[in-house]
Amino acid sequence: MTAPQKIGMQTIAFQSPPVIISTGSVVGSREGDGPLAGTFDKVVADTYYGEKTWEKAEQRMMFDSMKKALQKANLQENDIDFMLAGDLLNQIISSTFTARSLGIPFLGLYGACSTMYESLAVGAMMIGGGFADRVLAGTSSHYCTAERQYRFPVEQGTQRPMTAQWTVTGAGSMILAKEGSGPVITHATIGRVIDMGQGDSQDMGAAMAPAAADTIARHFMDTGRTPEDYDLIITGDLATYGKRLTEELLKQKGYDISKRYTDCGILIYSGSQDVHAGGSGCGCSAVVTCGYLMELLNSERYRRILGIGTGALLSSCSLQQGETVPGIGHAVVIESLKERK
Amino acid sequence: MTAPQKIGMQTIAFQSPPVIISTGSVVGSREGDGPLAGTFDKVVADTYYGEKTWEKAEQRMMFDSMKKALQKANLQENDIDFMLAGDLLNQIISSTFTARSLGIPFLGLYGACSTMYESLAVGAMMIGGGFADRVLAGTSSHYCTAERQYRFPVEQGTQRPMTAQWTVTGAGSMILAKEGSGPVITHATIGRVIDMGQGDSQDMGAAMAPAAADTIARHFMDTGRTPEDYDLIITGDLATYGKRLTEELLKQKGYDISKRYTDCGILIYSGSQDVHAGGSGCGCSAVVTCGYLMELLNSERYRRILGIGTGALLSSCSLQQGETVPGIGHAVVIESLKERK
Repeated sequence: MTAPQKIGMQTIAFQSPPVIISTGSVVGSREGDGPLAGTFDKVVADTYYGEKTWEKAEQRMMFDSMKKALQKANLQENDIDFMLAGDLLNQIISSTFTARSLGIPFLGLYGACSTMYESLAVGAMMIGGGFADRVLAGTSSHYCTAERQYRFPVEQGTQRPMTAQWTVTGAGSMILAKEGSGPVITHATIGRVIDMGQGDSQDMGAAMAPAAADTIARHFMDTGRTPEDYDLIITGDLATYGKRLTEELLKQKGYDISKRYTDCGILIYSGSQDVHAGGSGCGCSAVVTCGYLMELLNSERYRRILGIGTGALLSSCSLQQGETVPGIGHAVVIESLKERK
Repeated sequence: MTAPQKIGMQTIAFQSPPVIISTGSVVGSREGDGPLAGTFDKVVADTYYGEKTWEKAEQRMMFDSMKKALQKANLQENDIDFMLAGDLLNQIISSTFTARSLGIPFLGLYGACSTMYESLAVGAMMIGGGFADRVLAGTSSHYCTAERQYRFPVEQGTQRPMTAQWTVTGAGSMILAKEGSGPVITHATIGRVIDMGQGDSQDMGAAMAPAAADTIARHFMDTGRTPEDYDLIITGDLATYGKRLTEELLKQKGYDISKRYTDCGILIYSGSQDVHAGGSGCGCSAVVTCGYLMELLNSERYRRILGIGTGALLSSCSLQQGETVPGIGHAVVIESLKERK
């Protein structure tokens, strides 16, 4: 029988931490105009990416990000045991059609915008449990596909409140492996679905903040760590208002993370880019983690990062039936090689 | 480092097979009128299940099936490490709202109608890898919620071709555990997304059959087994036409499964029930596995079953954009206690 690798209530502590041996990231033009532009593998100017629909463009972005991750690791599709992916589109079509093209055995996930971190957590378990040598994990989002599925037709040009966020157009993918060089995943804290009654589809930061705070607090309790044990604590896409709420909720729980905390949705755009509260979407935490965070870890400027993928479980159907929007957050600890020694 | 538990290209062989210690199943009236009626925990006559919408009724069914599984095992929510679930509704709302109610750390999955077997495969890995002691896995579907989301308004009374299937109204859940008594999961074969160009949303059996055949053939190759090693080979929801196609495709690959092969979508209704080709939906394989198959295994009438959850990755959006419908199949081997000794 395999030795237990769970600590506390919700946290996995990997006895042999899986290695992130390669990443691939593809973003749209707005993300390419932002402050993290230099950390992405490819910037695509055309929102259609040469395809007939935005959905097909998003799918091509996910495909390209996965091919890029394979290429950078000098691997082929058949070197990968399993592919784990999900996205925001109904029936996760970006992921399933990419899996059709790649032909890798596929497990579909849905964690809304938390999907990148969900896939890292599950992928790390598959490797840590001896079920795979290499796993390809990824996700994608696209401003135009998300906006028209979840809110209004893009062409309508609806006025957006300041709490609204801008769905990142981009895809990020990672190859996790049993062996190799790169940052490692040491812990994963699986989140609970938390609902504090937020029901405004234009304020997802507030819907996700309680779940993010719940998972972060649980991570500290399970591991016995404090905010000071991390060089950086970063949430996926809470943006300005959600970040502030998360800090406040964690203060109420006795944790002050403010000195080392930021959010991918805040980092990805500059203040002058008219994105209201900041970035959001599956692609947001994916491309920032695959790009900027990997640079920080690979250069050993930061040695230990707590990343929390955050998802608003928004459904236009349940919203119309009077439901509120629950949130979820999955946390993963990524460490640079040096820290591991 | 954990010892490898993967064999061949796509198959996991569990060194310490996780135990199915409890199941819960709730079905609608049509399923309650079928030949397997006596194997379900609860039959609900009202399609609304006392709720205001069919979506809320489906959610209540999943919740009830999970509570039933907990109750039969004499366990509480906090005895469960993780919950794994998914369903057919956009943003898997049946699952996420059930996870909100139960408060168990949650991983959302999407494998269309293959979700029950996907959750068993992932759940078994979480236990087999030492990441959890107990996992709650489940799924649900509802004829009325699926029909109006994927095809036409139910009230429209659209004429259905004979290849059409009837989405099972029902939810099934299982508790997998490191220890306990019950049938065990010995293998899982993770499927690839396969597309042979089927694009008719009223003929999902044909869309799924190539994926089912691919996974079954791969399972035999990876394990070195033959159809004769199983008392029963059962697919999730291929129904009459899909079953026939799967048999033919496997004959072309050199495997004759016809003597021991059936499909959950064929078993769940009788010929006189006017369901056209048979049953379908996430709930189909879930309730047949939780009910009838568990009875076969617990009574040791059958000792080793190869079950294949089959999913048609149907999306009304991609269909409208000219795409075909890919399929996927995930296989799990379930053995009775006696066989294990």
